[in-house]
Amino acid sequence: MTLLPCKDRFDLPGGVIYLDGNSLGPLPKGAAERALAVIRGEWGGELIRAWNTADWISLPRRVGDRIARLIGAPAGSVATGDTLSIKVYQALAAALRMRPGRKVILSDSGNFPTDLYMAQGLIDTIGGGYELRTPAPAAVAGAITEDVAAVLLTQVDFRTGRMHDMAAITRRAQAAGAVMIWDLAHSAGAMPVDLAASGAEFAVGCTYKFLNGGPGAPAFIYARPDIVGEVRPALAGWMGHDDPFAMEAAYRPAMSTERLRVGTPPIVQLSILDAAMDAWDGIDMAEIRAASIELSELFIREVEARCPQLTLVSPRAAAERGSQVSFAFAQGYAAIRALIDQGVIGDFRAPDIMRFGLTPLYLGREDILRAADILGRVIGDGLWRDPKYQAKSRVT
Amino acid sequence: MTLLPCKDRFDLPGGVIYLDGNSLGPLPKGAAERALAVIRGEWGGELIRAWNTADWISLPRRVGDRIARLIGAPAGSVATGDTLSIKVYQALAAALRMRPGRKVILSDSGNFPTDLYMAQGLIDTIGGGYELRTPAPAAVAGAITEDVAAVLLTQVDFRTGRMHDMAAITRRAQAAGAVMIWDLAHSAGAMPVDLAASGAEFAVGCTYKFLNGGPGAPAFIYARPDIVGEVRPALAGWMGHDDPFAMEAAYRPAMSTERLRVGTPPIVQLSILDAAMDAWDGIDMAEIRAASIELSELFIREVEARCPQLTLVSPRAAAERGSQVSFAFAQGYAAIRALIDQGVIGDFRAPDIMRFGLTPLYLGREDILRAADILGRVIGDGLWRDPKYQAKSRVT
Repeated sequence: MTLLPCKDRFDLPGGVIYLDGNSLGPLPKGAAERALAVIRGEWGGELIRAWNTADWISLPRRVGDRIARLIGAPAGSVATGDTLSIKVYQALAAALRMRPGRKVILSDSGNFPTDLYMAQGLIDTIGGGYELRTPAPAAVAGAITEDVAAVLLTQVDFRTGRMHDMAAITRRAQAAGAVMIWDLAHSAGAMPVDLAASGAEFAVGCTYKFLNGGPGAPAFIYARPDIVGEVRPALAGWMGHDDPFAMEAAYRPAMSTERLRVGTPPIVQLSILDAAMDAWDGIDMAEIRAASIELSELFIREVEARCPQLTLVSPRAAAERGSQVSFAFAQGYAAIRALIDQGVIGDFRAPDIMRFGLTPLYLGREDILRAADILGRVIGDGLWRDPKYQAKSRVT
Repeated sequence: MTLLPCKDRFDLPGGVIYLDGNSLGPLPKGAAERALAVIRGEWGGELIRAWNTADWISLPRRVGDRIARLIGAPAGSVATGDTLSIKVYQALAAALRMRPGRKVILSDSGNFPTDLYMAQGLIDTIGGGYELRTPAPAAVAGAITEDVAAVLLTQVDFRTGRMHDMAAITRRAQAAGAVMIWDLAHSAGAMPVDLAASGAEFAVGCTYKFLNGGPGAPAFIYARPDIVGEVRPALAGWMGHDDPFAMEAAYRPAMSTERLRVGTPPIVQLSILDAAMDAWDGIDMAEIRAASIELSELFIREVEARCPQLTLVSPRAAAERGSQVSFAFAQGYAAIRALIDQGVIGDFRAPDIMRFGLTPLYLGREDILRAADILGRVIGDGLWRDPKYQAKSRVT
C-alpha cells in the first residue's frame, strides 16, 4: 500500500497547487519547530556548549548519511555544507588533479549556468591552458575524448527535464580515462539514483528542491570511498582537517569525504534540512518514480488536450525525463505569472519555457487535473494578455 | 548616556556569565521570531514567490550594508554568504591575480588555521611556485618584501588577543606593492574598524562571534570599491553574475562587490543575522571599545590578584589588545571545564590557553567581578583536579 501522496507531512498553503518543488520545496512539518528548538534551546540555552551537548559537531555527517540513502551512496560518503556552486568547484578541482596532462572539462550546453561558471572560474584561476567544452546534451557522450580530464553533467536538464543515462555515460567517461562528476540537483529526491552502482567518482547536489530543505539549504558532495585518499581539497578549510581543533599550522585532510567540508557548518539550516529528511521516512524511491511518471503523463495529456498553443519540450518518453514537465510558449513569462495568480505555481526559464515540477510526496492526481484545467483557462481565455503580467520582475 | 550593557537585547540563560561571545555570540532578542516568520510565513506561505514578495533576493546586500556600517565600509561594498574560509579563498585568489609575477602570500604564525589552510589549498591548486610565509606576528611587518603578492592577516589573534596595527601594516604592504587582506573575525563588532581609511583592498569576517548571528551564520567580504572591476572571481557562481536569471552560458561578473557572491544564499540564517544586527541600533563602536577596555582591565586585575598560577598571554597594553583576555595555564583544559560547571563560560585553545571574550553589549562590571571570583575559586580550590575534567571531549 502506497503512502503517496503524504501531504500531511507538509504545511502546504491553502488554495495553491504547487508545481515548483523542483525550484524550492515546500515547508515540511516539524521543520519550523526544529529550527525553534535549535535557536532557543540549543543556541540560546546552551550557547557554545551546544557543539557538544546538542551534537552540532556531527550534524553535517548525520545529515549526509540521510541524503546518502536516497542517492544510493554508502553511509559516510556524503559531506554537507556550502552551496552547490562550491561543491562543483571542489569536485572539478580535485578531478583535474587526478588527471594531470588532460586539459578538458566536458559539460553540455544544457547544464545549469552556475556549473559552467564555476568551471570557467576554476580554469581562469589555475591557468595552464584548460578548456571547457559544452556540446549539445545529445552529443556529449560522443564528445568524451582521451583529452577529457573530467565530465561534469547535471543528470536532469533544468529547462527541459531531459535526463542523461547516468550508468552509460559514466562507463563511457571512465573508459576514456576521465573522472565523472554528476550534479544531482534535479535528481536527489526526484527519482532513484544508484551512485554506488554507477561507479562515478563524484556527485554534488542541492537540498532545497526535491529534498525540501528550505531557501538556501546546504549542498552536498559525494566522493567514491575508494578514491577519497586521492582527493586533494582545493578549498582546504579547517572543517575538512583531520583534527580541526588541534589547530595545527599545516593542513592535513580527513581520511574520509569529510575532507570536502570547508568552514563552520550552518547549524540552523542543517537542522531544518535534517527535519525535512523526516518526510522521506518509509518512502521507497521506486514508488516515487512510478508516481512521478504517472503524474507527468497525466499532466502532459491533459495540458496538450487543452493548450495546443504550448509545445512540449520535455522528452515524451518517461525513461528520458526527470520529474518535471516543460512546455515552450512565446508568452511563457506572462502566462506563468497569470497562472500563479490563479493559484497554480510553476516557474519560467528564459527564453520561453514554462516549467512544472511533479513531486509525488505532496501532489496527487486531483492536483494535476485541476492544474491542467486552470492552465487551460489561462491559455485558452488569454488571461496572460493582461498588461500587468508583461513587465519583468527580478526573479521568476 | 551610555546604553551599555544592553542585556535586554539578548535572551541570556540564567545562572551563566558568558565570556565566550568571541566564539559564538548569544541569542539576540527577536532572532527566533524572525526565523519563525521566515520559515512559516515566507517559505511556508509564499513558497518560491518569497524571493520577490519577501525580498529574499536583496537580503544578502541589505545585511552586508548593516555590517558595513560597523567596519567603516561604504554601503554596497560588503557581500555576505558562504563561510569565512570561502571568503579568504576568494580574496586571496583575486589578490594573486592582481599581482602577477609575485609568488608569496605573507601571513603570520598566529593566524587562525583555516586562513592558513585555505592559502595552502589555493597554492596547491594553482601551482606555479607560490609560497606561504608565516613569520611570528611581531615580525610580519618587517617581512613584507617586494616579492609579496598578498598580505593576509587576522587583525586580532584568536589565541592571545594581540592586535595588529591595521593602518600601519596596510601602508607598509601597499608601499611594497602587495595587496592587503584583513580577516576581521575578532574585530567586527568588537571594536571600531575603519576599513575605508585603512585603504586595504579586501577584508573578510564571520558573523557568529561578536555580531551574534548564530551557529554557522554567513560570512562577509569587503572589496575596496575602486578595485572591484579588477577582481576576477575564482569562485564564479551564478549569484555573482551580472544578471543571474538571464541564465547566460558565459560568466560575466557583477560590477560591484556582489561579484564575490557565489551560490544561492542561506535565507534563514541571513534573516537571523539581519535580526541580530538590530542589537547594534544606536550603538557607537567607540563606546563599545571604551567599555571593552574597562572590562578587560578589570578582569586582568581581578584574576591576577586571585590566580598567581595563571600567566597573562594577552598584551597588557589595551591599545595592543582586541576584546578578549587570555591566560596560559598548563591545566587550562580541565580548568575551563571546571569553570563552565561553575557557570562561567570561557573556552580553551591548545596547547594551554584559557580564553575569555569581553563583550560590552551584554556584560557589565558586576559580571566581570563575579567571573573573576569564581575563576579564583576554581584555580585556588583546585576544582580542575577532578578527574571528570581531564578527559578531552571533541570540541571545547
